[in-house]
Amino acid sequence: MATLTPTPRTTVRQRADRGSYDRAVIDAILDEGLVCHVGFSVEGQPYVLPMNYARVGDRLFLHGSRASRLLTSLAKGVPVCLTVTLLDGVVLARSALRHSLNYRSVVVLGTATEVTDRAEKRAAMEAILEHAVPGRGREVRPPSDAELDATLVAALPLLEASAKRRSGPPVDLETDRAASCWAGEIPLQLVAGPPRPDAGVDGAAAPPLLRRRRGLG
Amino acid sequence: MATLTPTPRTTVRQRADRGSYDRAVIDAILDEGLVCHVGFSVEGQPYVLPMNYARVGDRLFLHGSRASRLLTSLAKGVPVCLTVTLLDGVVLARSALRHSLNYRSVVVLGTATEVTDRAEKRAAMEAILEHAVPGRGREVRPPSDAELDATLVAALPLLEASAKRRSGPPVDLETDRAASCWAGEIPLQLVAGPPRPDAGVDGAAAPPLLRRRRGLG
Repeated sequence: MATLTPTPRTTVRQRADRGSYDRAVIDAILDEGLVCHVGFSVEGQPYVLPMNYARVGDRLFLHGSRASRLLTSLAKGVPVCLTVTLLDGVVLARSALRHSLNYRSVVVLGTATEVTDRAEKRAAMEAILEHAVPGRGREVRPPSDAELDATLVAALPLLEASAKRRSGPPVDLETDRAASCWAGEIPLQLVAGPPRPDAGVDGAAAPPLLRRRRGLG
Repeated sequence: MATLTPTPRTTVRQRADRGSYDRAVIDAILDEGLVCHVGFSVEGQPYVLPMNYARVGDRLFLHGSRASRLLTSLAKGVPVCLTVTLLDGVVLARSALRHSLNYRSVVVLGTATEVTDRAEKRAAMEAILEHAVPGRGREVRPPSDAELDATLVAALPLLEASAKRRSGPPVDLETDRAASCWAGEIPLQLVAGPPRPDAGVDGAAAPPLLRRRRGLG
């Protein structure tokens, strides 16, 4: 797997040791997240919206209602930033300012374009479902032509991107290390609770669909 | 507690029934999140970065190193979007396109400004720590004057904002409800794992600091 070339816009400057341009690192974070935050500007005002997504090879796909003003703006070919953040823990240091979060994040910059080819659009919509719930596409009714037409799918190339990660214990000043307070890391994980069956569904038959997803406890 | 006036920029148009401008709803989401995603543009390119934050009354505070190019841009008075998303579950429907996520999110639009008053800056930095780990400020060394000077604190007014929420089971078409597949909601929660003490710290003494936080299991 390749390493992306850092651009002036994706070069990690603050804590450069935490940055990575390795596609294996970037892809693992993108593939584990359930939600991305997409930023784009309309008339000079940035908007940041949580969205479903999926990565397929060197592209990221987003989808939404064609009636959505913001998704329509997005697909018009404006500059976009897509960010995925996985929260791994809270870091308790011995001084206030050295407190931190452990996380893994990816920032992707580029221009989104609308996917108009119907077969490609279907594949992208299926990928977004498979990304959230692996194997689910085989079990449910696929999109009808009308649903396909009412949906806008946008693609963002995964070419200009960087990852940034923090892990491990606090980094305290030597002069603070004698402090009597507790210090360390409190790990955080996203955990799936007991499935809640919809009305008319046999609860006992709930498939362990989400267990196939990485990063869920 | 007040209700914000929706503006053309914060009016929830898609699934308007999921929107809220009620400060009680907005504040509860902002106060529960650990990470916000801040969007702002530099030379026409939006950037979306995960950051710590805190709400104090009608303002949101962010902080970071004064050496950070992006935080410096942010504090210059450019339009900003601050988004907090809490992921509550995966919704499994009987058709592909009706799959969804349950979530609570807040979008705040406005212009950030730098906090220069030293007392106000100290209070904001303390609020950001207290937001992540309630009660922690009393236990650790406060910022020194040098640390204060090296830190940039930005404030964003909480005036133009909206919340959007989805909860509950899938909303399937009547014609899909006879499908044999499992359907329902799989709740997700952020759960704190066993604390990992730093070198030289007594593990047994780990305070249940994060239990005071809402929304953590």
